[in-house]
Amino acid sequence: MNWPAHGSNPQYIYEAMNIPKPNTWIDLSANINPLGPPKSILEKWLHFYESIGEYPDPFANALKEQIAQQAGVAKESILIGNGGAELIMLLGRMLAQKNVLIVQPTFSEYEKACQANGCHISYHYLDEKWSLNLQGLMEKLDGVAAVFLCNPNNPTGVCFSLAEIQFLAEACTRKGIYLIIDEAFYDFWKDYEPLTPLQRTCENIILIRSMTKMYAIPGLRLGYLIASEEVVGQIAQYQPHWSVNVLAMLAGQECLKDEEFINQTIDYIEKERAKLSLFFTQEGFEMSPSKVNFYLLRDPELESQLPLFEFLLRHGIVPRHTMNFPGLGGEWLRFAIKSKTENDQLLQVLEEWRR
Amino acid sequence: MNWPAHGSNPQYIYEAMNIPKPNTWIDLSANINPLGPPKSILEKWLHFYESIGEYPDPFANALKEQIAQQAGVAKESILIGNGGAELIMLLGRMLAQKNVLIVQPTFSEYEKACQANGCHISYHYLDEKWSLNLQGLMEKLDGVAAVFLCNPNNPTGVCFSLAEIQFLAEACTRKGIYLIIDEAFYDFWKDYEPLTPLQRTCENIILIRSMTKMYAIPGLRLGYLIASEEVVGQIAQYQPHWSVNVLAMLAGQECLKDEEFINQTIDYIEKERAKLSLFFTQEGFEMSPSKVNFYLLRDPELESQLPLFEFLLRHGIVPRHTMNFPGLGGEWLRFAIKSKTENDQLLQVLEEWRR
Repeated sequence: MNWPAHGSNPQYIYEAMNIPKPNTWIDLSANINPLGPPKSILEKWLHFYESIGEYPDPFANALKEQIAQQAGVAKESILIGNGGAELIMLLGRMLAQKNVLIVQPTFSEYEKACQANGCHISYHYLDEKWSLNLQGLMEKLDGVAAVFLCNPNNPTGVCFSLAEIQFLAEACTRKGIYLIIDEAFYDFWKDYEPLTPLQRTCENIILIRSMTKMYAIPGLRLGYLIASEEVVGQIAQYQPHWSVNVLAMLAGQECLKDEEFINQTIDYIEKERAKLSLFFTQEGFEMSPSKVNFYLLRDPELESQLPLFEFLLRHGIVPRHTMNFPGLGGEWLRFAIKSKTENDQLLQVLEEWRR
Repeated sequence: MNWPAHGSNPQYIYEAMNIPKPNTWIDLSANINPLGPPKSILEKWLHFYESIGEYPDPFANALKEQIAQQAGVAKESILIGNGGAELIMLLGRMLAQKNVLIVQPTFSEYEKACQANGCHISYHYLDEKWSLNLQGLMEKLDGVAAVFLCNPNNPTGVCFSLAEIQFLAEACTRKGIYLIIDEAFYDFWKDYEPLTPLQRTCENIILIRSMTKMYAIPGLRLGYLIASEEVVGQIAQYQPHWSVNVLAMLAGQECLKDEEFINQTIDYIEKERAKLSLFFTQEGFEMSPSKVNFYLLRDPELESQLPLFEFLLRHGIVPRHTMNFPGLGGEWLRFAIKSKTENDQLLQVLEEWRR
């Protein structure tokens, strides 16, 4: 079967599974902030219209300055991208033909970008408790040009500690290896400690961040990368001119002004996650120890989760299959934490499943 | 001096020239339809807002079907891009390390994309009358993997005939060379004859089209490519997932529905171009024989056009310098044909210049 490579766009999973699309569905396959975009975007929406007739600033200077100031880094160490996915592809281009190590299970675009560019790819697997197994990882570093790590990790929702990252980053620095850390969901993690100070001593750390998950604007495409000036300069040459559209830039600038938004989101998600977690424990489901806005779930009574997946789809609940995550192979399902109503709907359908 | 690589974003040219920015300016450096976007985009603008919270369809299926139908080609032969610039970069990636021939003077992104990908680049120059000099071009084809040709050509506005293109395409087919034709401005050309029928016999023709010039939505980024399924498949693997944002897709779908829009635009541009042309002849300026919405201009009384360029900038008129167009080297200035008022303003400033 041809499994869709990503969540979102539920029509593709219904088609692939040959299940008739219900009239309505709840899409829990995309990890987007349930609070929706900051209000100021809608307030300025008509005003934004006036900019569609102008070319975007190819250097995204205004947005770049804002990010540089908030992140406490030099403007020259930032590259704005047409979504995190573009930045991943640009890094794949930079690493063409080289050896790369991907910490699995994780987001599939690292492998896709590296494959397209003829990289030699090897994996390091998280252990059974989803943790990093640093010792094993260290043994795989020799001869590698770059390590891809997602933190908080997608699809597990599990976070690696600053101490672990620092240990790994220092080893990578000694060996001249790029440590590429995809922080697409860092702003959902309550206890996140920024890695930017560590970049001062470990110049080989490349951070990728998304602005579309927290700010609920995946349709607009916006992400950025923080790395050494050298890396930024190298990959910028592969980026198409005017790659970031004006609406992404304008909306991004609004998002960064709304400082309360992130805290409100984290509080909301924490409450919902606690409620879900309690239910799953009571009903005998297994859940990954997520610290963010999505989690893995399985019914330990099943060998394959496929019947549960199908049941949910037929009942209008769309989780994310994990068929194409090395190390998961469909043994889990991933769910986004969405609005209270949507999460309750999921629990209701799962209750029905238990009956 | 560090000349900005492109028109648009006039702040960069004022900064580079160290000329204080006037309070208002008329930007004639970007070749965008002066009629603005089709009305339906504004009418649906609020409705579009609802889609920013969803991931774009990564295959852009709805838009692709619409284009396929209107262009009379198979859906599989189309790739939608984040602007024409992305498609050019993807082709550069496909051609990495190979020999490419660029017909100059032309749009600078072909060279940039090829350079970033380590291609070996050679030029074929148009003759003094801006025409193709097919004989000379044929002599340069051996050992080349691809030819880049822009038609209608940017920055001259001059068009190459179907007969010339066919002759070249057939030669390229025999030699196994890709003929990449950037048709970014094809829909401004009244007598355009589509090359898609020719693609049936010459599979190596790759057409790039922009939707941001005619439909005045450069801020949204949208273009597409028509080529063999093989080429589409090859470059699609280098394209980041979700590369085309939802607004570009939704706006693009609206644009294609408005069939009268192109004719209205062409009529408007033709009238304005005739008026401008008459003035330039009377006042002793030299103009390229453009058939589209921009043209080259020079004052033959000057050796370098720099004083005229500076004069215009100081008077709030922003043309496009041609410093980075091989074969032009600043000896001409490029102007977009904009609204009647804006064009008249240009003529007024040029009258002043003549005095």
